[in-house]
Amino acid sequence: MHAEPEVAVLRYGHRPGRDDRMTTHVGLTARALGADRVVFPDNAGQSKETVEDITDRFGGPFAVETTDAQKAFVRNWEGVVVHLTMYGERVQDVQDEVRAVHREEPVLVVVGGEKVPFEVYETADFNVGVTNQPHSEVAGLAVFLDRLFDGRELDREWESADRTVLPMETGKRVVDPSEADAMEMANGAKGDESGDGSADDV
Amino acid sequence: MHAEPEVAVLRYGHRPGRDDRMTTHVGLTARALGADRVVFPDNAGQSKETVEDITDRFGGPFAVETTDAQKAFVRNWEGVVVHLTMYGERVQDVQDEVRAVHREEPVLVVVGGEKVPFEVYETADFNVGVTNQPHSEVAGLAVFLDRLFDGRELDREWESADRTVLPMETGKRVVDPSEADAMEMANGAKGDESGDGSADDV
Repeated sequence: MHAEPEVAVLRYGHRPGRDDRMTTHVGLTARALGADRVVFPDNAGQSKETVEDITDRFGGPFAVETTDAQKAFVRNWEGVVVHLTMYGERVQDVQDEVRAVHREEPVLVVVGGEKVPFEVYETADFNVGVTNQPHSEVAGLAVFLDRLFDGRELDREWESADRTVLPMETGKRVVDPSEADAMEMANGAKGDESGDGSADDV
Repeated sequence: MHAEPEVAVLRYGHRPGRDDRMTTHVGLTARALGADRVVFPDNAGQSKETVEDITDRFGGPFAVETTDAQKAFVRNWEGVVVHLTMYGERVQDVQDEVRAVHREEPVLVVVGGEKVPFEVYETADFNVGVTNQPHSEVAGLAVFLDRLFDGRELDREWESADRTVLPMETGKRVVDPSEADAMEMANGAKGDESGDGSADDV
């Protein structure tokens, strides 16, 4: 997340059709929660398009790439590899160590879809479980990133957006980014929350 | 999460087929990250079965219910209603207040699927955005619960499980819960991590 070593997310495995939404959600979660880029298997072109489209509209920087060699991508990563798996060490036990390494080195977070080969468990510097319960790779990624960045990702600012959502108590308000900046300057950090609650969609 | 007022998660809206996996992941995330129950729309029977099956195998208590009246369920909730939406107030700004209310009252977390009616925005005591960016309702729920419970949910113990995953540096290890208990007593809180790394699936 800028001025820090890079964080990339690799979605390992993708079944076109069946996994489209999950893979897209992995990419959007990576973007929203502070990663610098996501890498999809090369058969996930539809998810790539969706995440790029959101980045075009809501801002970046955020890169979306594909690879035709996932295992090699993990093996050749120059930095630390964190593989999220329900079989791994408890996130609460290893997060301090991972944060410390991230101050020095780029982090690759591997998020499994279909079965992840054992080689990935062996290559990873950390196999990490966000709980040792079966739930969702998207949920695991979200909690991991929030803890890796210690919440700093929530204050990230977005560049080159053509729309910005203003946080509101009730309703929906989407404005031009320059308008959002002007409101912030006029009203302090929280912005003007007197929107009309109209249901413009993003 | 036991000895505290209840936390329930309502999945608002479900399109059978298209939403099955997302709805299932909402339910599994609710279970894994400390909620006491999930409530699905009554057309999400397949997701209900999956979450119940996981609870049977990996433990509880965790309840899965359905409703044929989602709006009324929100309106009649006796406690505080938190609606997760990218248009809402920033989670980092409201989390202390929500935590304080949760010490006194049950919390209903509403997680939208298809379009959520404006009435839900108005009924909610808090509309909360885990970022004001489009990403994933599963990711938003995960970060929200982790922050609501301040990480306590990760130390939750499970009852009536017929299998337990032991956290490991490398590999997979699934054991009978009584075996896990015995290992914990013998080795301290971290358990024995000398597994063989065999790839038994859950």
